[in-house]
Amino acid sequence: MSKGHLLPLCVKEDLKQVEDELTRVVSSKEGKLAEAALTTLKAGGKRLRPILVLLAGMINLYDASKLIHAAVAVELVHTASLIHDDVLDGADTRRGSPTINAAWNKKTAVSAGDYLFGIAFEILSKLDNPYLMKVMSEAVLALSVGELHQMRTRYSLNQTMDDYLAKIKSKTAVLFSTACLIGATLSEAKKVEIEALGRYGENLGMAFQIYDDVLDISGDKKVLGKPIGIDLKDGMVTMPVFLALKETPQRAYLQNVVENVNLTEEEIKKAIEIIEATSAIKETKRRAKGFVEKALGAIELIENDDVRGSLCSIGEFVIDRYH
Amino acid sequence: MSKGHLLPLCVKEDLKQVEDELTRVVSSKEGKLAEAALTTLKAGGKRLRPILVLLAGMINLYDASKLIHAAVAVELVHTASLIHDDVLDGADTRRGSPTINAAWNKKTAVSAGDYLFGIAFEILSKLDNPYLMKVMSEAVLALSVGELHQMRTRYSLNQTMDDYLAKIKSKTAVLFSTACLIGATLSEAKKVEIEALGRYGENLGMAFQIYDDVLDISGDKKVLGKPIGIDLKDGMVTMPVFLALKETPQRAYLQNVVENVNLTEEEIKKAIEIIEATSAIKETKRRAKGFVEKALGAIELIENDDVRGSLCSIGEFVIDRYH
Repeated sequence: MSKGHLLPLCVKEDLKQVEDELTRVVSSKEGKLAEAALTTLKAGGKRLRPILVLLAGMINLYDASKLIHAAVAVELVHTASLIHDDVLDGADTRRGSPTINAAWNKKTAVSAGDYLFGIAFEILSKLDNPYLMKVMSEAVLALSVGELHQMRTRYSLNQTMDDYLAKIKSKTAVLFSTACLIGATLSEAKKVEIEALGRYGENLGMAFQIYDDVLDISGDKKVLGKPIGIDLKDGMVTMPVFLALKETPQRAYLQNVVENVNLTEEEIKKAIEIIEATSAIKETKRRAKGFVEKALGAIELIENDDVRGSLCSIGEFVIDRYH
Repeated sequence: MSKGHLLPLCVKEDLKQVEDELTRVVSSKEGKLAEAALTTLKAGGKRLRPILVLLAGMINLYDASKLIHAAVAVELVHTASLIHDDVLDGADTRRGSPTINAAWNKKTAVSAGDYLFGIAFEILSKLDNPYLMKVMSEAVLALSVGELHQMRTRYSLNQTMDDYLAKIKSKTAVLFSTACLIGATLSEAKKVEIEALGRYGENLGMAFQIYDDVLDISGDKKVLGKPIGIDLKDGMVTMPVFLALKETPQRAYLQNVVENVNLTEEEIKKAIEIIEATSAIKETKRRAKGFVEKALGAIELIENDDVRGSLCSIGEFVIDRYH
């Protein structure tokens, strides 16, 4: 996260330990799997989920050691899901680095994902709290449903905006919520605060994914570190596409682009122009902002000003990334 | 398991509930994943791992409800690992039924495996015992290491018998041991008994896998429900192959078969004849029996005669399957 200066000092410090611990636990076991898994782990994630664990973990007590382990487990589950996602998408690169599929093969990617799931649950089980395992299991379940949902709805307009929202909830929002629930639970926060944090995480995750989908269409390639239009190329029907289809006079062309599995760069460029000529991007950003507002509304009752301030900053960051 | 009459009545009864519960929990969530996962789940496994959970769960107290849930979780982890294994092996059939790869595609198989891992951990987390989660996480980790180990050593003689033993420990023995540890823990057995059951499970699992590898070479196709020589075709170097290579005058031919990725039926048949002309099968069975003896030795201290008797029967079944 680039706006790290908005985080409390202890979170910034402990985030370094999370980073070291991630490398250590992944490297500690099987050589080849460790090597493969580390490439994805080190491909430059923003570590938003560990940040959420640590911040939520400040609400009441702050048990750094437990929180660091929990943050590591959450990031490992996220990374495992990215690795399996790349198998499903047949993706060759992630943030400019080769995926495990590309550098090794799909088989290594399947095992490497399982390996990280195993380490994550092993770490979490040592925290001796069945509730943490329960919410994490539910997150893994949601991720698998989200993965398949995403794959099955590619290149297809036979889906609604509600399908899209359900998909991004499974794929992204549930793990954001889980990160918050785990942190707040370890902090021994009040039940009402834990629930509030859960709602914050879920809405933040929705906003995050929606804004990610915006960036794929209107982002800056250099700032993003990846080309734009990837989702279109992969047949993902995202919110800007849904909204543009409703409004554009070039609906037939855009429909065709969505359903086409072999798009040229030229066709992607034209589709982006069509979307940008509508109010879809603006409206999508407005809806993403709406989710952030719901997220911030959920944490109004949090008494710890430091935590609430940082959670607000993250909300702003999510819908203002790379402007 | 065909020798079900050797099981105590309560285990036989509860095994039916495990079966119903397996179907119920897998069907309860996402439609497509459930449908895919059920094909593998229903492909006719022997449910040895659930049996071990239930039997070990009889040592002291017998809490049927908890044990049934735990048995379901263990079988789901096993099934998830089979599904991912089939992706890694590119297998088209399992026990005569099409694999998820074949009936759907590899992508669905990756998600279906993750889906079952998620359900398994969700169920286990409800049993409110972090130790169960810890041993299950370690099993998932071992399975992922075993999966990759198996894939990396295919078609290669650059491995030792110790490598083979380490691989089958990760791939099979750890989950057998886990099933026993979970059952005995839920039974609130004494620590020394829980540990004894763990050693029993591990050694039983070693024997089971070794005997499985024997059946691939000298089994009866009709009884097995699958062709023999599959492991050879897939480049798996199993104990009978290791032993035959040491003894046969046709070492060069057999080496070539192992390293050949495109074997004909004729070549497989000849390789099997070469192996059968040595003492390899007999010696492999002897070693499998040695593991069963270690397994039975471990449970001598178990006071519950019913449980010990059934565990002994399973030991005999494992090395005497289909004679």
